[in-house]
Amino acid sequence: MDSHIIQALKDIVGPDRLETAAEELQCYSYDGTGQECIPEAVAFPDSTEQISKIMALASASGFAVVPRGAGTGMTGGSLPVAGGLVLALGRMNRILEIDEVNQVAIVEPGVITGSLRDTLAPLGLFYPPDPASLKFCTLGGNVAECAGGPSAVKYGVTRDYVLGLEVVLADGRILETGVRTRKGVVGYDLTRLFIGSEGTLGIITRIILRLTCRPTTSKTFLLLFADMAQATALVAAMLKEHTPSTLEYLDNTALSLVADKLPFGLPAQTRAMLLVELDGDGQSVELQGARLNDFLADRQDILLLQEAKTPEEVDALWKARRSVSPAAFDLKPDKIGEDVVVPRSSIPELVACAEELGRRFKLPIFTFGHAGDGNIHVNIMLDRADQEEECRGQQAKEALFREVLALKGTLSGEHGIGITKAPFLGLELSATSLDIQQQLKKLFDPLNILNPGKIF
Amino acid sequence: MDSHIIQALKDIVGPDRLETAAEELQCYSYDGTGQECIPEAVAFPDSTEQISKIMALASASGFAVVPRGAGTGMTGGSLPVAGGLVLALGRMNRILEIDEVNQVAIVEPGVITGSLRDTLAPLGLFYPPDPASLKFCTLGGNVAECAGGPSAVKYGVTRDYVLGLEVVLADGRILETGVRTRKGVVGYDLTRLFIGSEGTLGIITRIILRLTCRPTTSKTFLLLFADMAQATALVAAMLKEHTPSTLEYLDNTALSLVADKLPFGLPAQTRAMLLVELDGDGQSVELQGARLNDFLADRQDILLLQEAKTPEEVDALWKARRSVSPAAFDLKPDKIGEDVVVPRSSIPELVACAEELGRRFKLPIFTFGHAGDGNIHVNIMLDRADQEEECRGQQAKEALFREVLALKGTLSGEHGIGITKAPFLGLELSATSLDIQQQLKKLFDPLNILNPGKIF
Repeated sequence: MDSHIIQALKDIVGPDRLETAAEELQCYSYDGTGQECIPEAVAFPDSTEQISKIMALASASGFAVVPRGAGTGMTGGSLPVAGGLVLALGRMNRILEIDEVNQVAIVEPGVITGSLRDTLAPLGLFYPPDPASLKFCTLGGNVAECAGGPSAVKYGVTRDYVLGLEVVLADGRILETGVRTRKGVVGYDLTRLFIGSEGTLGIITRIILRLTCRPTTSKTFLLLFADMAQATALVAAMLKEHTPSTLEYLDNTALSLVADKLPFGLPAQTRAMLLVELDGDGQSVELQGARLNDFLADRQDILLLQEAKTPEEVDALWKARRSVSPAAFDLKPDKIGEDVVVPRSSIPELVACAEELGRRFKLPIFTFGHAGDGNIHVNIMLDRADQEEECRGQQAKEALFREVLALKGTLSGEHGIGITKAPFLGLELSATSLDIQQQLKKLFDPLNILNPGKIF
Repeated sequence: MDSHIIQALKDIVGPDRLETAAEELQCYSYDGTGQECIPEAVAFPDSTEQISKIMALASASGFAVVPRGAGTGMTGGSLPVAGGLVLALGRMNRILEIDEVNQVAIVEPGVITGSLRDTLAPLGLFYPPDPASLKFCTLGGNVAECAGGPSAVKYGVTRDYVLGLEVVLADGRILETGVRTRKGVVGYDLTRLFIGSEGTLGIITRIILRLTCRPTTSKTFLLLFADMAQATALVAAMLKEHTPSTLEYLDNTALSLVADKLPFGLPAQTRAMLLVELDGDGQSVELQGARLNDFLADRQDILLLQEAKTPEEVDALWKARRSVSPAAFDLKPDKIGEDVVVPRSSIPELVACAEELGRRFKLPIFTFGHAGDGNIHVNIMLDRADQEEECRGQQAKEALFREVLALKGTLSGEHGIGITKAPFLGLELSATSLDIQQQLKKLFDPLNILNPGKIF
């Protein structure tokens, strides 16, 4: 990016909205993977029109453009691996419209997911997707990666709440997709083609979201088991008649990492834990809770069933669940964190596989995650400074992926492909699928300037 | 299609599975629009492999291929407007797998939607989308058009239940898309690109469906109003706190067409009707019913609130609702039926617009449909034998479309574009969107042999 391009960019966004100083570039060089790639410049556009001009310039000059939300992604989606310009979308953080009657919100990509939720709450409205980074991540990033979260078992993922988009194409043209109504089938589904495309097909500049009624209350239950297979058998049975809003599990290692943070003591035989939450309005949650208690009362396989009776107990349970990831670094300084998905009936096999891989590759490997939808966070703990250990970690990861696919699963449920899973895409997708996908990329981005190096 | 092609097709599907006799071709020449286009031949393939060979032959020879389910489509999607081969998929009607634990079904495209529902019911499982043609239409057609139905207000549309597809591409290659797990974000979302693509991008040969728990019971309410705006205001208020599984309305004309079929008498001032259904398990429906009754008890704007107390009363209410379409032909021999969508708060404007268009173009025009999601069936009644009347009907349709778009709506919620709405695509989609969509079509079907003449 020569000085003429830098000047042209300054002309578009304003001189104080373009950074090239090393210390500024540093701030936009990393994401949730911990990896780092320094861009050549960072622009802070404020409007679709500015982004349109930037893309027209990028097309004419051939520099790479990497859109960035909050940099909380787990697979490198926002890393400028080929240099070029980072498009920092944090200034485009306006909630443009909340249509209460029709339960629709229109937002810019830089709106923080949690702040939309906070704005909606007093209106009795709800945007369900709840990635772990809820308080920091942006809706643009959520759409680009099709983020999920614990509530997906009841409410679905980001994809299920996007009605339409405004997108700036590689050549600077502005495209509107989808609808702002509850239904719409006019033409090809471009909206969902952009969802999960990780900034490789266009820059998302506006998002039309479907909202729902806000659940006013919830109930939280802790269940302990002597065996992971008992926990997952219960999950399958429960989902036949109940609709929990959260169904999280911790395996034995994950549990031992956070046992001292739980508000209840663990029986000695405990090897697995489920965290179950019900939500809705008061009466409905009471009824759901009574039905769930009836269902659980007969199960001989539960070591302990404990309902959180106070807000403090609920907080403590969730705090324990959320502490798993940070506590993992007690085991080793680095982590390969994957978010594979298997049919939920296959969770015991996956957990057993993770344990076996831990023994085979001599690394601490444990799992936890969304038992209700089979979306499992597999954590391979290692010391990256030790090259031989890093090599074993990568071998364990590939062996895990092969087992996931053998179980009819998929490599990613909510983190996307980015750069960390890109080498493994061919394990899951056929040559025909890859060919079609690469042709799609070429159609939307013939010069390969949109987030190059990602997915493929 | 010369004799060599016909012979080659017979070699692929078997001599008795290819028809060229005029009386057979006639049977595959029409759909729900009432329009007719005679194909050159009809093939009845039995497997993905046969379809793959047919597409390879079509690519080599350049003949058009039009996939066909049950021919219940409302916009001409299955009409062979450019001649060529109709691919009748009725023999591919196997339910290949029902995975009870993971709540997934894998089906061939020719499975009748209602027959999947019937098969799932004893297992306590449920496939929610319920197009009016449920008992006849096929899942392949539902996916190709992204069919909806009355239950969409609670459960969503076909799109929301498709996890993955097997598709034969224009050149005969077989593509697998998506996953069989609850989540998946690996690569571009090809699954949803095919959903609603009306057979123009590939032939769907297998469908992986997400299932839910089956609601075991329901409650049905009839509500009458002196004014359409009162009915829609109530819909918006209701959806803030209640989750009905159906929220249908009839306008004054629709109501008068079926008044004698209702199990309750209509007060003289009645001008609009809502049909509300709640579903779930027994206790939950009781609770929902009590909450809804509480909510409705305070509303001064309801002329009559009547809960159907017996299965016979429920049947009678639904029979009245379903009789609207056939009864419409008491008004005129032909119908232009549209399925536009507006934000649900704009339904009164749309109903007023329809009445005004009826006056302006001197035709009976009335509306009914899915009040909960704003998906309105507008019926322009006319006599097609009268060319001048047909011309007025078409003018009314275009005026309707312009009003729908002015209300921030969309031209189709569940019927698709096909041939009947194709001339109006440019009213809703920008030149950029049309350009991208046509490039997508070219990417998947460079020779334009897949259902040519549709959408664009």
